[in-house]
Amino acid sequence: MAVTPLRRDANPVPGSGLAARLAIRAGHRAPTAGLAPGYVQGNLAILPKALAADFLRFCQLNPKPCPVIGTSEPGDWRVPDLGEDLDIRTDLPRYRVWKNGELVAEPYDVREFWRDDLVSFVIGCSFSFEEALVSEGIELRHIVRGCNVPMYRTSIATHAAGPFHGPMVVSMRPMTPANAIRAVQITTRFPAVHGAPVHIGKPEQIGIKDIMKPDYGDAVEVRDDEMPVFWACGVTPQSVIATVKPEFCITHYPGAMLVTDRKNTEFAIM
Amino acid sequence: MAVTPLRRDANPVPGSGLAARLAIRAGHRAPTAGLAPGYVQGNLAILPKALAADFLRFCQLNPKPCPVIGTSEPGDWRVPDLGEDLDIRTDLPRYRVWKNGELVAEPYDVREFWRDDLVSFVIGCSFSFEEALVSEGIELRHIVRGCNVPMYRTSIATHAAGPFHGPMVVSMRPMTPANAIRAVQITTRFPAVHGAPVHIGKPEQIGIKDIMKPDYGDAVEVRDDEMPVFWACGVTPQSVIATVKPEFCITHYPGAMLVTDRKNTEFAIM
Repeated sequence: MAVTPLRRDANPVPGSGLAARLAIRAGHRAPTAGLAPGYVQGNLAILPKALAADFLRFCQLNPKPCPVIGTSEPGDWRVPDLGEDLDIRTDLPRYRVWKNGELVAEPYDVREFWRDDLVSFVIGCSFSFEEALVSEGIELRHIVRGCNVPMYRTSIATHAAGPFHGPMVVSMRPMTPANAIRAVQITTRFPAVHGAPVHIGKPEQIGIKDIMKPDYGDAVEVRDDEMPVFWACGVTPQSVIATVKPEFCITHYPGAMLVTDRKNTEFAIM
Repeated sequence: MAVTPLRRDANPVPGSGLAARLAIRAGHRAPTAGLAPGYVQGNLAILPKALAADFLRFCQLNPKPCPVIGTSEPGDWRVPDLGEDLDIRTDLPRYRVWKNGELVAEPYDVREFWRDDLVSFVIGCSFSFEEALVSEGIELRHIVRGCNVPMYRTSIATHAAGPFHGPMVVSMRPMTPANAIRAVQITTRFPAVHGAPVHIGKPEQIGIKDIMKPDYGDAVEVRDDEMPVFWACGVTPQSVIATVKPEFCITHYPGAMLVTDRKNTEFAIM
């Protein structure tokens, strides 16, 4: 494995994805929401090579919850598609390390846990389409309230691959009917970051009993003149990995995403 | 006004728009739904030149309910954009003739009513996007039941132009949430034939008190697992014209549309 040295003395463009990663590498530990506006952020899953092929197949079978936007070579901590100067072991604010399905550490860097058989998967995240919604004037309640988006385990099954299987997790944003229609149009342009909603209006149809009790994130009000709009969520692969209980796995800490050099606008298909 | 003779001896391609028009010209009087599959059908409004400029401006201000797909020169019964061999006076199965807002005749041809100051407007119709929905596997209840789509006068105001003003009329199709999302995507491709829905899910928000009591067309059931999806409707201009009560006006008889030489697929923007 030949690894070029990372440019740890780089002088990045302020506000860029690289600037965010270098700040994180140097000790920034806050959530990444709002960092490097315009740049794609991603969910992280790192698995041993023995599981990687099945996991990638799982993602390809389930592109709405698991849109893969970058992968590494086994043992390599670089993901060149997403950034030239990018070290997956140090460039996220915080990680979660799992052994046999148990959470064993929540470190700020994973160099001490690194193994030569680890493969990294970076999965698209709703921040990208949320930026497009907000720039079109659609207010997102969890952003206004400064909390996490509410997320729910659903009765929608994913397509299994090898050991990977389990329910789809969705995120929910309340919208007026007119904004819901516009949001379908806008997010359809971003298939690499979850794309169009998977459901709208009737949570009970997808196994959600109480919209005010999300399984992850924070509850937000759905007003009488609004309907809940549901998108496939990048928490799905983490939920599925938790079911499989692989002997070893690293994920991002919630809210502590990988900030890349790719622009959100690059991911619009038109 | 120079008018080239129409080819009344033409030998049209079976199933074509021209074949339908020639059959109608020769006496076919049934509704046009299902005639010439794949060819665009349109709503008709014929107004005196004194009102035409305001009406066209009204349509341009309200493109969702009033998408103009063809116009004539004053006094000319041809609409060359929509068909070379097309006589607007004879090529619809049935017409309605209005004087000062009163219905005065429902003739099968309007040659005896023709005036040298009449301007024809052909307005896109939901048949075009319905064909796209059905071909994508979305069942439309009013088609399955063999009745007219239910239509409602709403509390959504149109943008006024000159004397033309009044509420938007919408058509309603019940759909599962997944089909509603897909239908937004499909009909967004057809802005010239009403485009994306204008509302979804909450009829009371747009002034519809009882979904089972449409103002035009026939009621269809909305099942518990479905939501009503509403599109701007080409009946809007007729409803607005009825409010204005112009001294003279001709419209198509409900269900008796103009069949054109244009293909529905031409109207897809992508």
